[in-house]
Amino acid sequence: MNTLVILSHPNLSESGSQQFLINAVEAYEQVTVHHLESQYPDGKIDPQAEHELLKRHQRIIFQFPFYWYSSPSLLKEWQDVVFGGEDFYRQQGTILKGKEFGLVLSVGVSEKEYRAGGREAYTMDELTRPYQAIARHMEMIYLPCFGIHQFAYQSEAKKKQLLIDYQYYLTGRQPASLEHRTNWLVNELRTTNLESLPMELSDKIEAIAVDLKDRQEVLADLKDTLAEF
Amino acid sequence: MNTLVILSHPNLSESGSQQFLINAVEAYEQVTVHHLESQYPDGKIDPQAEHELLKRHQRIIFQFPFYWYSSPSLLKEWQDVVFGGEDFYRQQGTILKGKEFGLVLSVGVSEKEYRAGGREAYTMDELTRPYQAIARHMEMIYLPCFGIHQFAYQSEAKKKQLLIDYQYYLTGRQPASLEHRTNWLVNELRTTNLESLPMELSDKIEAIAVDLKDRQEVLADLKDTLAEF
Repeated sequence: MNTLVILSHPNLSESGSQQFLINAVEAYEQVTVHHLESQYPDGKIDPQAEHELLKRHQRIIFQFPFYWYSSPSLLKEWQDVVFGGEDFYRQQGTILKGKEFGLVLSVGVSEKEYRAGGREAYTMDELTRPYQAIARHMEMIYLPCFGIHQFAYQSEAKKKQLLIDYQYYLTGRQPASLEHRTNWLVNELRTTNLESLPMELSDKIEAIAVDLKDRQEVLADLKDTLAEF
Repeated sequence: MNTLVILSHPNLSESGSQQFLINAVEAYEQVTVHHLESQYPDGKIDPQAEHELLKRHQRIIFQFPFYWYSSPSLLKEWQDVVFGGEDFYRQQGTILKGKEFGLVLSVGVSEKEYRAGGREAYTMDELTRPYQAIARHMEMIYLPCFGIHQFAYQSEAKKKQLLIDYQYYLTGRQPASLEHRTNWLVNELRTTNLESLPMELSDKIEAIAVDLKDRQEVLADLKDTLAEF
């Protein structure tokens, strides 16, 4: 499955969170990161080129800093130009229908403020309704929004977890069930270039992968047994 | 009360609804229509000039065609530039706090489709949450959204009503109670340049104004009487 990350950020090099995310998926061949402000410094978006890009991917992600409860202006311009022409309307069925659509948002305010009684009053799901409406209009499958709140204040442990969760959001199967996540993790461990690592570590990684598969089998057996009753 | 209409539309001259709205308030000295795409053809917004403009008005309206459940990109750019700088944060309290904020949206799809089970699934109020959140953040008073659905298909009678409703939305007192609306209408009738009209029509207008004031007094008396019980 190929994933297209349509990234909008006016000062990408100054954003710690965006640099972190870009590095996190650099090694994935199936992920294309498409930074709009670099591609179109004059703001003139080429709808045909964008249509071709969309056609080659099955999961489409909008990734941006959450500015005033929405995206930077160039991503909005992208929407109006790319979704707006007659050409797109003719092709709409084949370009986006049935594909997955997700949001990766970096947010300056703590997640707990996005609720009734919180500082921001509305939930992230309420504030991102326009994107849900777009996915619905295009007959796409809307993935749960991936919000990264206050990245700069996160501990190293949290950042490591974020790295894995983000990689999964872009490349793992949805919905993110236990089974899909386990399969993804085993595959990630098995495709790690073990030769580049110290023997002790590579042995450990292989042991974890075996253990995960074993547990998955035990769980499957248990489910079968329960189903017989 | 001075009203600032921040209008964003990339092809203003081709928009029948926007031309209609602009004409509807041309005669009002207290209304400033500020078309962003004319003012900033290169997209470079001057935050200081915009701050000064905001300072001189008590009611701020965002007026735009509802493209992909949001504004054209230049209005989003305006938000990021005008609300974004340190200068604005310092002045925020004096620039926007306590002022009124409204939306005037021209929408291509019928209003009844914006509901659960309708073609658009979400209500206009749900889709405009980001603007409600901005008003809340700025401690502004959010006015009920003024949506103009399928302008081109409206009858002449509906358009006449729309004209009055729009003029009221920009210049009348909020909330739009019966009392406030009556006062506004009487004032509008009384400040009409009657000398430019045929005698018969000017007499009729004066009669309507007198009648409205009379009814308002009757209603006030009735309320007083009821309050005594």
